Amino acid sequence: MSSKYNVLLIGAGGVGTIVAYGIDYVGKSNLSIVVRRDYEKVKDTGYNIDSIDYGTIEGWKPQNIYPSVEAAATPKVVYDYVIITTKNLPDIVKVEDLVEPVITPGVTAVVLMQNGFDLGRPFFAKYPENVIISGVSHIGSHNSNGAIHQTQKDKSFVSYFESPTLSKEVQEAKTKEFISIYSNEKNECNYFENAKWYRYRKLVYNATLNTVCALTGVDTGRLEFSGGLESISIPAMREVIAVAKADGVELPEDVINAVVHSDDGDWFEPSMRVDVKKGNPIELEVILGNLLKVAKELDVETPILTVVYNLLKVVQYRLKEGQGMFTLPEERPISDKFYK
Amino acid sequence: MSSKYNVLLIGAGGVGTIVAYGIDYVGKSNLSIVVRRDYEKVKDTGYNIDSIDYGTIEGWKPQNIYPSVEAAATPKVVYDYVIITTKNLPDIVKVEDLVEPVITPGVTAVVLMQNGFDLGRPFFAKYPENVIISGVSHIGSHNSNGAIHQTQKDKSFVSYFESPTLSKEVQEAKTKEFISIYSNEKNECNYFENAKWYRYRKLVYNATLNTVCALTGVDTGRLEFSGGLESISIPAMREVIAVAKADGVELPEDVINAVVHSDDGDWFEPSMRVDVKKGNPIELEVILGNLLKVAKELDVETPILTVVYNLLKVVQYRLKEGQGMFTLPEERPISDKFYK
Repeated sequence: MSSKYNVLLIGAGGVGTIVAYGIDYVGKSNLSIVVRRDYEKVKDTGYNIDSIDYGTIEGWKPQNIYPSVEAAATPKVVYDYVIITTKNLPDIVKVEDLVEPVITPGVTAVVLMQNGFDLGRPFFAKYPENVIISGVSHIGSHNSNGAIHQTQKDKSFVSYFESPTLSKEVQEAKTKEFISIYSNEKNECNYFENAKWYRYRKLVYNATLNTVCALTGVDTGRLEFSGGLESISIPAMREVIAVAKADGVELPEDVINAVVHSDDGDWFEPSMRVDVKKGNPIELEVILGNLLKVAKELDVETPILTVVYNLLKVVQYRLKEGQGMFTLPEERPISDKFYK
Repeated sequence: MSSKYNVLLIGAGGVGTIVAYGIDYVGKSNLSIVVRRDYEKVKDTGYNIDSIDYGTIEGWKPQNIYPSVEAAATPKVVYDYVIITTKNLPDIVKVEDLVEPVITPGVTAVVLMQNGFDLGRPFFAKYPENVIISGVSHIGSHNSNGAIHQTQKDKSFVSYFESPTLSKEVQEAKTKEFISIYSNEKNECNYFENAKWYRYRKLVYNATLNTVCALTGVDTGRLEFSGGLESISIPAMREVIAVAKADGVELPEDVINAVVHSDDGDWFEPSMRVDVKKGNPIELEVILGNLLKVAKELDVETPILTVVYNLLKVVQYRLKEGQGMFTLPEERPISDKFYK
């Protein structure tokens, strides 16, 4: 036991469960998970997994299953890795606060397997001695009541968010150690040197196609045929590229073409569009909000992205109200503000 | 009979029927209407009207009821007035083409009782010898299967769109004559000198609150409380005011405040928002498209309105598809275009 790593994974849904299973498969870790909604079911009967990588598994359970982060912090255990695979909604829950009970300063490495951009920043502020690892997963997997269906291979790129305090060597070693407890012959887990580059590359799609489809209620095909691709999304891509450039990241010359053609042949609905359709809050802040903060710091103009962001903030407000996160009075309160 | 005006009203729904009834009430006209969807019912049993202005009326019929504009053109009659109270969707039907069979050059005055801006332009191009009257109606009235419920008084402002070819005198006389066949002691029909000014004033609301609510799916109250009013709509109002100014129209200094507070106390859903909710096409081109054309001609920058317009074009595409106006192939066609 003592030679094994203590690993906690938070958010064992479609993606998280396959990541957890992969770590268990390697066998170097003492694996715990936090699972909220399906806790009772998973505690009783484990996961039934139908996986393109691992085949059919019935009743799989890791060593420990907890209903909350607080519960995972009760045993006197020092976690070597805390992996976060939840949705990333800092305007609702701040992940860096959520995980506080399970972080040991200077020891626990945090692995953010989440959508978004510049995710390290709030962690560096709160945990300056900890390595913050970036995992970008290209997996297709979903969860229906504890039954996991993985339809696309678990392929991921793992790097570290560059800490302002820690050395390159420490961070790189920790990141590669994480890969050694996760990578196996069934999945594909690659070390990628530049997290920032990779996250910018993803944003060229996510900040422009994902957002605009969410706002207009179409898939990327209809966005193209309606003219929105050329009138909004492509000019918005140029804004992302300009921010990246000002931030020292040079994206390939054909990046716009590659991104536009990435859903070729599919009437593909990106994640934010699907969230709006389902009435779920959108990952607006980590995809667009964080980019606009950096743009402002670097003094790069982003007129289109700013309007899209402000519009999606209104949509997010509507989605939060729909989720019962707040209630408005029956009669609209009158503002006595003078607007000009 | 010969001393009466020949009047044709096209689009006898909630608003149109009350306008028609008001004209019939005055009694100076030989009144015909075009009613498409409810033609059979109206032809048989007439309209049942429950009106805040006129009380309860059962089985009202004008002199002639036609199922189409073509049918209204069959009798050899010269119309003095053609009043259009349909929705204004030039990207679907061009009103100036629709009415061609019932227009006598140099004689028929066209009354556009419709939403939108710069509506005279296509008529001046096609009918340079005809007076084009602008009617802005502030009425609350809706139609359910030929039963009309008018809940807010018929109050309207009538002016003329300034023709590049006709004299002020001719246009003013014709406009006032129209008022004389429509205005009665139950309704409130005012002559307003400057149609352009009035249409710009309406746009301060319609181009910025109506559009943004349609795009984000909220009412004007939620737009305010979510921050969208101040981040998008008010800056967009400044763009409308700048276009107006460049076009020679000076709006009042407190116009933004007046517009923002115009729905005070109500969680009010503007018309475009209601259309999107119902899956109906939106009056995007006459509200925002025409404004942006003028802005371009006058070289006024409208960065926010332009993004809002381009986004709503995508929404309009989705709405048209939803109405069965076109069908897409099952597999998304692949474009071989190189995007950059």
